[in-house]
Amino acid sequence: MSGLPVVLAVDLGGTAMKGAVVREDGATMTESTLATPSDGILAALVELLGDLRRTAADDGHDVVGAGVATPGMLDEQRGLVYYASNLGWRDVPLLDILRSELHLPVAVGHDVRAAGLAERSSGAARGFGDFALVPIGTGVAAALVSSGGAVTGATGAAGEFGHIPVIPGGEPCTCGQRGCLEVYMSGAGVARRYRAAGGEALSTRRIVERLGDDPLADRVWSEALDVLAQGLNILTLLLDPGLIVLGGGVSHAGDALFAPLGERMSAGLAWRERPPVVRSALGGDAGRAGAALLAFDAART
Amino acid sequence: MSGLPVVLAVDLGGTAMKGAVVREDGATMTESTLATPSDGILAALVELLGDLRRTAADDGHDVVGAGVATPGMLDEQRGLVYYASNLGWRDVPLLDILRSELHLPVAVGHDVRAAGLAERSSGAARGFGDFALVPIGTGVAAALVSSGGAVTGATGAAGEFGHIPVIPGGEPCTCGQRGCLEVYMSGAGVARRYRAAGGEALSTRRIVERLGDDPLADRVWSEALDVLAQGLNILTLLLDPGLIVLGGGVSHAGDALFAPLGERMSAGLAWRERPPVVRSALGGDAGRAGAALLAFDAART
Repeated sequence: MSGLPVVLAVDLGGTAMKGAVVREDGATMTESTLATPSDGILAALVELLGDLRRTAADDGHDVVGAGVATPGMLDEQRGLVYYASNLGWRDVPLLDILRSELHLPVAVGHDVRAAGLAERSSGAARGFGDFALVPIGTGVAAALVSSGGAVTGATGAAGEFGHIPVIPGGEPCTCGQRGCLEVYMSGAGVARRYRAAGGEALSTRRIVERLGDDPLADRVWSEALDVLAQGLNILTLLLDPGLIVLGGGVSHAGDALFAPLGERMSAGLAWRERPPVVRSALGGDAGRAGAALLAFDAART
Repeated sequence: MSGLPVVLAVDLGGTAMKGAVVREDGATMTESTLATPSDGILAALVELLGDLRRTAADDGHDVVGAGVATPGMLDEQRGLVYYASNLGWRDVPLLDILRSELHLPVAVGHDVRAAGLAERSSGAARGFGDFALVPIGTGVAAALVSSGGAVTGATGAAGEFGHIPVIPGGEPCTCGQRGCLEVYMSGAGVARRYRAAGGEALSTRRIVERLGDDPLADRVWSEALDVLAQGLNILTLLLDPGLIVLGGGVSHAGDALFAPLGERMSAGLAWRERPPVVRSALGGDAGRAGAALLAFDAART
């Protein structure tokens, strides 16, 4: 028990389980990413954590806790996952299971909210008590931080920014609602709308590469920016964040995204300034970094 | 100093200053409401507080503090009002001024957020850590409460629910933006749209009285309900409140409001339930009751 204190951290996603052994200063000692199996996710997660623990012990570290960031709706205090569609989980007492398997202090957190805490601790939102992290990948989510605390909501379901209805009676969303933000602005949404309008089957990244040369790409992307600006202005007027951090694959669109988005946001606001909009500093590692923060919190209490 | 502890509480509005002497259990000992003057608001406020203090002393009470709820954008810790359009204020150090005038513990709070705290303490939201109070009067605002704390935002400007853009490129708002929620659903908005569509110059209350007999009233009110349902669903998906409390004059529309609003909200949500929507219990007294709560907090610290 004389080694450096470390935690086991896993960002549990529908396609991958990103694990690591992490030091208190945030440095990653070991990384291990595995494909998420379609069956037996819990067993695979416990096995990944066990492997990480052995590696840490072999390296002479002192494992003081474990943290898992999970998608879905959950009660973070009780570590109970009510529902996670891309894991096929319903009412899984994740915290209790991991505690009894690991005999360690364990924390369970929401993946996007954990990523938000990590961006605040060591990423793009350092020093901000009020900000939003908005990952734009296949779908769109948000971690909303108010006065330093993550907004979780009455049932752990806050932050569904991708499903706010921005276009009344708009195009149908896979979620069953109409006019959701991510119908128009998301990796899946832009690609789907481009194809539905007669374009090829291309990824959103490829569509963005065609901007300026392909009028259909220009139009679909412009509509996506309009909707994102509207959504971020809604978020700004409701929550008054000091900073908006964009993450996810779409945040790599660079100048095609940030400059026109900022212009549209400013054009939509008459009497208040928009907050700065920047790209995530931690990118795809933010969820796992957040899980490590939660694990150290659990180890201290 | 042997009397019952009381505070002086004022809800400072653009048209009226609602003052009272309030006991710690929330009971009102004396009330005094004055018209807000167009000039010399600060002097009139200090005078009202002085009158209330003398009355309290004459009645043998022990005045332990004072609280003022104010509209606008403000830093509640410093008691600095950055901007309050309907008071004509810009950068008014209200807390410092009142402290030096009164020589008492003083608190300054935002009117809608103070009303939210009062609804939580003794009104419709008792026991709720996550809820929203949405007063619908001439305009529309919101107090957003997350994990028991009011969301204030990075610049004290959170809660501008009336100005979220719900209809892209929609009708112009007096604020300079387009498609704001309160353009369609507010006391001023419904009356304006009814008249613009060829109706008489009627108050929103009178327009609601005509529902079922007046197709134009039916149409304008139905559009208002659509927009309010959209806005409350946005709020629900972002913040996951356990309860939504409607206040302001429009909340007295009763069955014409709550039943069709709830139906529209449920119709717009596919995969989560809507929170219950109820009417404010404290009504127009909520701001003053919140100012009294803040005053007792200040007296205790």
